[in-house]
Amino acid sequence: MGAAPTKESMVDVLIIGAGPAGVMCANGLARAGVRVRIVDNRPVKVSAGQADGIQPRTIEVLQSYGLAEPLLRQAAYMVMAAFYNPSSSGGIERIGRVPDVTAPSARYPFEATLHQGEIENIFLTSMRKEGVEVERPIVPRSLEISTDEVLLKDPQSYPVKVILQHLEAADKEDDTEVVYAKYVVGADGAHSWVRKTLGFTMDGEQTDYVWGVVDIIPSESTNFPDIRNKTAIHSNNGSCMIIPREGDKIRLYIQLTDTDAVDPATGRVDLSKYGPQKLMQVAKKSFQPFTIDARPEDVDWWTLYVIGQRVASRFSAHERVFIAGDACHTHSPKAGQGMNASMNDTHNLIWKLTHVLRGWANMSLLKTYEFERRKYAQELIAFDKKFSAMFSGKLKAGDSKHDLFLEAFQSYGSFSSGIGIHYSPSPIVAPSYQSAAAHLTVGQRLTPHMLVRAADARAVEIQDYAPADTRFKVLAFIGDLKANAERIARLVEGLSRPCGFLQRAKARNFDAFDVVTICKGKKEEINYVDVPKALITHWTKVLVDDTDVLGKQGGKMYEAYGIADEGAIVVVRPDGYVGVVAPLDGLSIVDDYFAGFMTA
Amino acid sequence: MGAAPTKESMVDVLIIGAGPAGVMCANGLARAGVRVRIVDNRPVKVSAGQADGIQPRTIEVLQSYGLAEPLLRQAAYMVMAAFYNPSSSGGIERIGRVPDVTAPSARYPFEATLHQGEIENIFLTSMRKEGVEVERPIVPRSLEISTDEVLLKDPQSYPVKVILQHLEAADKEDDTEVVYAKYVVGADGAHSWVRKTLGFTMDGEQTDYVWGVVDIIPSESTNFPDIRNKTAIHSNNGSCMIIPREGDKIRLYIQLTDTDAVDPATGRVDLSKYGPQKLMQVAKKSFQPFTIDARPEDVDWWTLYVIGQRVASRFSAHERVFIAGDACHTHSPKAGQGMNASMNDTHNLIWKLTHVLRGWANMSLLKTYEFERRKYAQELIAFDKKFSAMFSGKLKAGDSKHDLFLEAFQSYGSFSSGIGIHYSPSPIVAPSYQSAAAHLTVGQRLTPHMLVRAADARAVEIQDYAPADTRFKVLAFIGDLKANAERIARLVEGLSRPCGFLQRAKARNFDAFDVVTICKGKKEEINYVDVPKALITHWTKVLVDDTDVLGKQGGKMYEAYGIADEGAIVVVRPDGYVGVVAPLDGLSIVDDYFAGFMTA
Repeated sequence: MGAAPTKESMVDVLIIGAGPAGVMCANGLARAGVRVRIVDNRPVKVSAGQADGIQPRTIEVLQSYGLAEPLLRQAAYMVMAAFYNPSSSGGIERIGRVPDVTAPSARYPFEATLHQGEIENIFLTSMRKEGVEVERPIVPRSLEISTDEVLLKDPQSYPVKVILQHLEAADKEDDTEVVYAKYVVGADGAHSWVRKTLGFTMDGEQTDYVWGVVDIIPSESTNFPDIRNKTAIHSNNGSCMIIPREGDKIRLYIQLTDTDAVDPATGRVDLSKYGPQKLMQVAKKSFQPFTIDARPEDVDWWTLYVIGQRVASRFSAHERVFIAGDACHTHSPKAGQGMNASMNDTHNLIWKLTHVLRGWANMSLLKTYEFERRKYAQELIAFDKKFSAMFSGKLKAGDSKHDLFLEAFQSYGSFSSGIGIHYSPSPIVAPSYQSAAAHLTVGQRLTPHMLVRAADARAVEIQDYAPADTRFKVLAFIGDLKANAERIARLVEGLSRPCGFLQRAKARNFDAFDVVTICKGKKEEINYVDVPKALITHWTKVLVDDTDVLGKQGGKMYEAYGIADEGAIVVVRPDGYVGVVAPLDGLSIVDDYFAGFMTA
Repeated sequence: MGAAPTKESMVDVLIIGAGPAGVMCANGLARAGVRVRIVDNRPVKVSAGQADGIQPRTIEVLQSYGLAEPLLRQAAYMVMAAFYNPSSSGGIERIGRVPDVTAPSARYPFEATLHQGEIENIFLTSMRKEGVEVERPIVPRSLEISTDEVLLKDPQSYPVKVILQHLEAADKEDDTEVVYAKYVVGADGAHSWVRKTLGFTMDGEQTDYVWGVVDIIPSESTNFPDIRNKTAIHSNNGSCMIIPREGDKIRLYIQLTDTDAVDPATGRVDLSKYGPQKLMQVAKKSFQPFTIDARPEDVDWWTLYVIGQRVASRFSAHERVFIAGDACHTHSPKAGQGMNASMNDTHNLIWKLTHVLRGWANMSLLKTYEFERRKYAQELIAFDKKFSAMFSGKLKAGDSKHDLFLEAFQSYGSFSSGIGIHYSPSPIVAPSYQSAAAHLTVGQRLTPHMLVRAADARAVEIQDYAPADTRFKVLAFIGDLKANAERIARLVEGLSRPCGFLQRAKARNFDAFDVVTICKGKKEEINYVDVPKALITHWTKVLVDDTDVLGKQGGKMYEAYGIADEGAIVVVRPDGYVGVVAPLDGLSIVDDYFAGFMTA
């Protein structure tokens, strides 16, 4: 670092770190029109190894950004999970092969695996269309938050001063710059500089479990029948897990005895003690009587790790600097949570920052980030502890715990798929009138459901009517047009009141709401032109709760959501989570909900 | 045209005309590695109007080229068809709204509509990756086929000499070139220069029906409830048809009284007699009591036409020059057949030309193009005559023919969807052992069916195992691995015989076959490694006849195809049509099939 910086600039949001949490954040903000910069200390992005598993819920989230397609096109799908235990004749035997995803409402009933670099690429490609690129290699050298209370309370002020150093600057004497940011997101990984600078601690502990991981293309002589399924192996030689990968690749997690791989002097993993061939030798023993093999040139990547399970003490400083992803939680990779938790952290943050920056929401909205995501991280660590202990524990042939892991696997399905994530009551999660849509859970994601458009009977997924476009979706379940005519007329009247949320936003030119109307009826009979004009934002946005033309998909949505014939209003947050539900004539509940965090 | 051409070149296939038939052909050949050129007389491609309807079968064909996605993303879907007749109180009333596609096996149960220019673009984008672009504006000035029998019999000779003129050549004195082609495809439209040059006649007649067509975005005041459905209107004012289009557009076909629009002197349509506003006035009357309106700036395109129903006397000269698309058949646009018939003409031709050019097949294979596609064109004209007459005919309120059109519409569904296309017996359609797969029809397209991959239980569509990659797909329905063990062993033995089709092709380095194995069994139990190695071309190509993990799709494929537990072999042509079926131990039938047209 040379002399004092000569370059100064201002930005709405500065993101430090371009891993999954960082690129999710940058893409979301850029598409929302927020002025954003993202910097990373690595000269190039990762090209092998790293995290790879995408949960069903994360696929839904990617879909909400219009980005599921490139993932689904390239990824391997883990549809089934197989379990092997020690057999009585030595070696291992299969005790079951069951669906990998057990959450019944998963829109995508599988996990997808794809190399982290490719997943990041999906976001980088999308960001690029908005003119945003990762700037690298750049490291932050200092970060200061103003102590001026007036500044801190003004959502449009620039209270964060960050000094960045360009590692490959042409002029080494002038390689730093000062950035004044309204907000900063530290998505800089497990060893987060931002976290340390803020003085947040990581609470939790290191386990004794040491694991090796190796990415290979198995050779043709491999005769293990579940090589393309997610497979948990308990053998007398230690545990293994198979994660099939895109193309012909697979990943093996291989349990090691810690004395082998941990440096006694430092307590740290000693990579020099192992190599991919030695890891494969351990795996081969654990796979007996089956064979697994890979030619040396078919080894793509490998590493060793010790599981640490920790959560940061805080996720935000003054709601001006946030940390996200591995910077706030570390845990075992085998449960396939890491990248998902990271991306969903910033998915939670994107719309909140956007609404505050646009002047739509009060700064207090930003407090819900730590509230929602830290609680989730703690649940994640608790889950991971149970999961890892069970997986790393030894089993013997005839052990009474034989099927315990399989059972545990299935009972954790809701959590591990990401489907079960449930945000607690807060200004943006208002479950008081939950009974109006009894089987949708306020604080959980909008359950996917197929239905058809009234105008052209095209089958659509309701989740696709709740894209991550920073708008709240107001789903008006107006029931049968004739039977509910009076109630519908009152709703139309209510929505036209100047003091209501819709007209107030309109008056201020806030494009914060999208109204979707869902009727009861039959596609053969319903006339979308009979819906009051105020409830037709576009002809594509009038839906009818009926099956597709073949009668194979969809229909019975009112029943599935627990909505009575009288109808209901369901408000979906911009991140796809149900914020509030109300009876159809309970518009004041919805008004109150928005008044709780939107600017007056 | 200036002096004698100074430029000469050689090409495998020269395509004249870059409409749907031409670009389908150029893309398919380019991707097969054939040296191809495509020229067109228009300086730019069409940007409005023209054909727009894509049938269910054509969507399947696009999917077989990996090109359905951009169509499905951009297109409007016609899911339902509505029918209106004169009402007793004057004006019109709906007599029914029914599924638009009635063929039960359609993979895509709807028609897709998209502007012809965009559809062509899908092919142009794909071709471009192979380095092929449409050369324009270029017109052919002469075409000669050698009369040398030796040349004509040699599939690798260049017996066709074409002189092309570059209309925008920099040097007007040197604007022509000579192209020597092995084969020429004339896809140059209804007024085909190639057809006229070959001296082929168009057999058939002109009807009396005059129609107007106008593309509009209906204004918000439009209250017609089926404006986004395919709708046939019989009114006392004349007939109308609505074809919803991509975005908010729709197309109206409007029947006119011929005296209005036909020049009495020439018998030709006189465009000066009408304009879009006058057409809309006719439509408005026919729509009463409903309203339909469009602002002048929301009129995208319009024209008038008289229906002619004709088929060319021949489709090929010496199997060296072929005509395709509108060059060989003209008919009414309202049944939505034109672009489909055109693209499917060249889809039929692509693999045949490729196999002959690669030396895999005898030139006699090329005779099947005219045999298959001219018969289809005749059926198409017969269908169109009935359809047009019925649609253009008048109905009165209380007419006993009230529902006749609706009934006819449904009974023609198999044909009009393209699903029912059935090629007659020929060297490439061998139905003798039809009973081995009783519910698959030899000569029809491979019926879509979902099943799962044995190795990873991923749900797949069998049609996606029959891509248009110029290879024959050998589907080995081997039944249950244990029960059929002996039969399977004999199959494996048979496939390894040097005189069999598979080993002969291998010995000559012909990549003409792809083997896909379909077992009976359960995804929870089957071990794909138990399938004999000779039947595993890749781990993704061993399938099991079971439902997807949710139990919602697929399974019961043996039953659906009428294949007994003893198994069967199904050979699918490179264009997706079933060529031959045989019992599992009837490999000699398959050998005989290929010996009938492949080179010795």
